[in-house]
Amino acid sequence: MTDLASMTAAQPAAAARSKGALTKAMIVDQALKIASQQGLEGLTVGLLAEALSMSKSGVFAHFGSREELQLAVVREYYRRFEAQVFQPALQEPKGLARLQKMINLWMQTSIQELSAGCIFISGAVEFDDRPGPVRDELVRSVQTWRAALRRAIEQAVEVGDLNEDCEPEAMLFQIYSYVQGLHHDARFLQISRSVDIATQSIQQTIDQNRSLRA
Amino acid sequence: MTDLASMTAAQPAAAARSKGALTKAMIVDQALKIASQQGLEGLTVGLLAEALSMSKSGVFAHFGSREELQLAVVREYYRRFEAQVFQPALQEPKGLARLQKMINLWMQTSIQELSAGCIFISGAVEFDDRPGPVRDELVRSVQTWRAALRRAIEQAVEVGDLNEDCEPEAMLFQIYSYVQGLHHDARFLQISRSVDIATQSIQQTIDQNRSLRA
Repeated sequence: MTDLASMTAAQPAAAARSKGALTKAMIVDQALKIASQQGLEGLTVGLLAEALSMSKSGVFAHFGSREELQLAVVREYYRRFEAQVFQPALQEPKGLARLQKMINLWMQTSIQELSAGCIFISGAVEFDDRPGPVRDELVRSVQTWRAALRRAIEQAVEVGDLNEDCEPEAMLFQIYSYVQGLHHDARFLQISRSVDIATQSIQQTIDQNRSLRA
Repeated sequence: MTDLASMTAAQPAAAARSKGALTKAMIVDQALKIASQQGLEGLTVGLLAEALSMSKSGVFAHFGSREELQLAVVREYYRRFEAQVFQPALQEPKGLARLQKMINLWMQTSIQELSAGCIFISGAVEFDDRPGPVRDELVRSVQTWRAALRRAIEQAVEVGDLNEDCEPEAMLFQIYSYVQGLHHDARFLQISRSVDIATQSIQQTIDQNRSLRA
């Protein structure tokens, strides 16, 4: 498994087989790499053109504005996240197996991203005070992922794997906070045991909500 | 209680009674307000001069560089945090009473900051990939606060308020993650129940580690 920003560009979709669409995909790919390290606000057309050995106007021919580029980056990141984390987990049966798979794949992705950074986590801080289309797209992506996690928790209650008095909203808050805490402690404070502590804390939350018969 | 960025400048210390030192304190005060909303990287001498109705060169007369100004902001923020959160908690006896007071005051400060933002949390994301004096100062401040929290947890174990098998590092990780999760959910996702859920999750962590005789 590789981090999302370093994945090679996805198989071009049918609509994307033209040369223009391939160039566009290549630009987004590089833009995502830059945004992962510098933040979405650190992504400039100048930096991007340099990394691609293109002219700035060459980039602008594909993306009319920096904002359009930022939006494309958020959408591509979410697309990769969904393909790498969410879709494979749907192969598991509803219940704790699926929830655990979602969390495990998410943690694996997060650990891979510790060296580069995650645009959902940096974006949340960059854009919390900046209304506009980029913030809206980021919120939509994060909320979609959180809704999927919450649904998996609720299903695990429904099938009897998690306790009936489990509070899905609190459980979601705790697990999501731990993944954020991992990024903070590993990247900013460089605490080497962070991965172990975060993994253990997530497991503890699951175990506390596990039904006795599961 | 007010948020740290909106506090009036502290009583000038003995060394700060000259007009120059007062002006300097006023500049830092305004710089902290700007940095809380725009991030430390969003703090520019231009913005600051405008907010203070001063010339840029007037600001530069007190702070030789933007980096010097950022460092002064981090130090002043930490000074206020210590005065508002850490010092009052030391009035409580060692053990759960002191730990609980530290956490309560921290949560109160965090809640006040939800409208403006916290430079420790935004700074961690802004500077995780940017080595230098500002990052070092931020890490030092955060580590000092975390060390104080950890010491309070250890003391609560020593006096028998928390269980002997409590793991201070894991407990610190969990509580710190919840405060970060609160900022994320309340500021970025604007989930109104975040304060309740975070408060409840922190209390749950304390209760899980509480000694039976406490």
